[in-house]
Amino acid sequence: MSVIYALDLIGTFVFAISGTLSAANKKLDLFGAFFTGFITAIGGGTLRDLILGNFPVAWISDLNYLLVITLGVIVTFLFKGMIMQLKKTLFLFDTIGIGVFTIIGIEKAISLSIHPALAIIMGLFSAVMGGVIRDTLCNDIPLIFRKEIYAVACIVGGLLFLFLKYLQVDSTVNLFVTVICIIVFRLVCIRYKLSLPVLKY
Amino acid sequence: MSVIYALDLIGTFVFAISGTLSAANKKLDLFGAFFTGFITAIGGGTLRDLILGNFPVAWISDLNYLLVITLGVIVTFLFKGMIMQLKKTLFLFDTIGIGVFTIIGIEKAISLSIHPALAIIMGLFSAVMGGVIRDTLCNDIPLIFRKEIYAVACIVGGLLFLFLKYLQVDSTVNLFVTVICIIVFRLVCIRYKLSLPVLKY
Amino acid sequence: MSVIYALDLIGTFVFAISGTLSAANKKLDLFGAFFTGFITAIGGGTLRDLILGNFPVAWISDLNYLLVITLGVIVTFLFKGMIMQLKKTLFLFDTIGIGVFTIIGIEKAISLSIHPALAIIMGLFSAVMGGVIRDTLCNDIPLIFRKEIYAVACIVGGLLFLFLKYLQVDSTVNLFVTVICIIVFRLVCIRYKLSLPVLKY
Repeated sequence: MSVIYALDLIGTFVFAISGTLSAANKKLDLFGAFFTGFITAIGGGTLRDLILGNFPVAWISDLNYLLVITLGVIVTFLFKGMIMQLKKTLFLFDTIGIGVFTIIGIEKAISLSIHPALAIIMGLFSAVMGGVIRDTLCNDIPLIFRKEIYAVACIVGGLLFLFLKYLQVDSTVNLFVTVICIIVFRLVCIRYKLSLPVLKY
Repeated sequence: MSVIYALDLIGTFVFAISGTLSAANKKLDLFGAFFTGFITAIGGGTLRDLILGNFPVAWISDLNYLLVITLGVIVTFLFKGMIMQLKKTLFLFDTIGIGVFTIIGIEKAISLSIHPALAIIMGLFSAVMGGVIRDTLCNDIPLIFRKEIYAVACIVGGLLFLFLKYLQVDSTVNLFVTVICIIVFRLVCIRYKLSLPVLKY
Repeated sequence: MSVIYALDLIGTFVFAISGTLSAANKKLDLFGAFFTGFITAIGGGTLRDLILGNFPVAWISDLNYLLVITLGVIVTFLFKGMIMQLKKTLFLFDTIGIGVFTIIGIEKAISLSIHPALAIIMGLFSAVMGGVIRDTLCNDIPLIFRKEIYAVACIVGGLLFLFLKYLQVDSTVNLFVTVICIIVFRLVCIRYKLSLPVLKY
């Protein structure tokens, strides 16, 4: 099992938990929670594969994604109290997931000869669209549009990844450096309450 | 005309009516009603075909879907009072539609060598995603996440269908048995007010 | 650069502005505004290409779309006051965008041997789906379902376009005639407050 695949499954697992928690927040039932967890986990990658014309989409040809998601939903239902207290750990894994999803998206796009600027957009879509769909289904304005600066972290990480790739840095090293950079960037933004300007009328 | 195709058109017709009624509930205009009816009717199958990479999607290469949907919207506009009183009949057809869409989704996925567990997910998507998109467009949290147990009926029906298929039961017999099972399951759930547990904080 | 391509980029630019203004209305941050502008501008065309199985989708193989959208978002942020006063000009360009998107959608569908009635639906999707996704993300019921009659303008324009095409009118002439017809239709509807009937319970 390659490192990136392992991290992909971890990201999927954590995204499933985040979707399930959102659903719980809206008092959805077990099915609604599973469905929301599922969509959150696979939404970004599915949209990326659809736009790139990359069929079949990742999770439909590999049962492990479904297993990992189901596990994430069950774990959330059984240990919700404990999970709520693990927020810092969850946050760390969530950021790992975002970082990995960003890089997988960029890699797939580059391998299809997409322009680097559009490849970064594809990385961003992979990382954030699951959460955007989750929030839309739960009838909220997507969180990422309001509070979180993690989209910027994805873009910065994506630029760094492309730059290191251009310098022919080993791809596993590049992956770790980029993900760590995304995590640090996000932590710094939260620590110093950095946020993007808001357009006012 | 095969039995499954006829039932598919009936399901599409009923889903168009359900979408139109949702739109009416939100005071949308004629176009909004047509559009919502259209999306409700084709949303699930379209998403299924996109994910499976099954092009062109069903309704774009067969005019009958558009005709049946247009008929559904017009009938709803002309006879809305009568339709509201036919709720029981509508409910029956709606459940038939759900059952048929589930099985069409599973069949298409199986024919593309998708794993049975993922084929059931594809069946579920075919059956419920139209309604999910309808509710999202109308700015509601999808009904299926809150009150209805019919997603579970789809999954149970899907499992039965795969089991009977494995036993090499004739496919038309299998279709009827499965759809009737889905209807009975749903009626029993409603009669005895069965519902899924809700995840509370 | 062909006329239709130039108009396509203008339409994309104006749609990006309209998405950014929507985001500003909801107090989204710079990223949310860019993202909403981006989705508004490419949403309709992307959905069209996905449904038609037309890969890669238009904007992923041509950097100009991203450049034009980025420009639209930046211009909106810098000159929002001025843009708000240019409403009439914006409205004109918006209608040009809608008209052009309708015709591009129809042309693409026809070139894939789709039935003309379904080609008009594809034109409509190209023109309106960006706005529908924009409104859904911003947690509104899509504007087009409630107030605007422009969907009807698209359909009328689409029918005219197909009719003139059938008469073998030169395609650039046909494009201009159709877009002007869509603009006039929309202006007349607004001037005389024409709207579609609403389905009441």
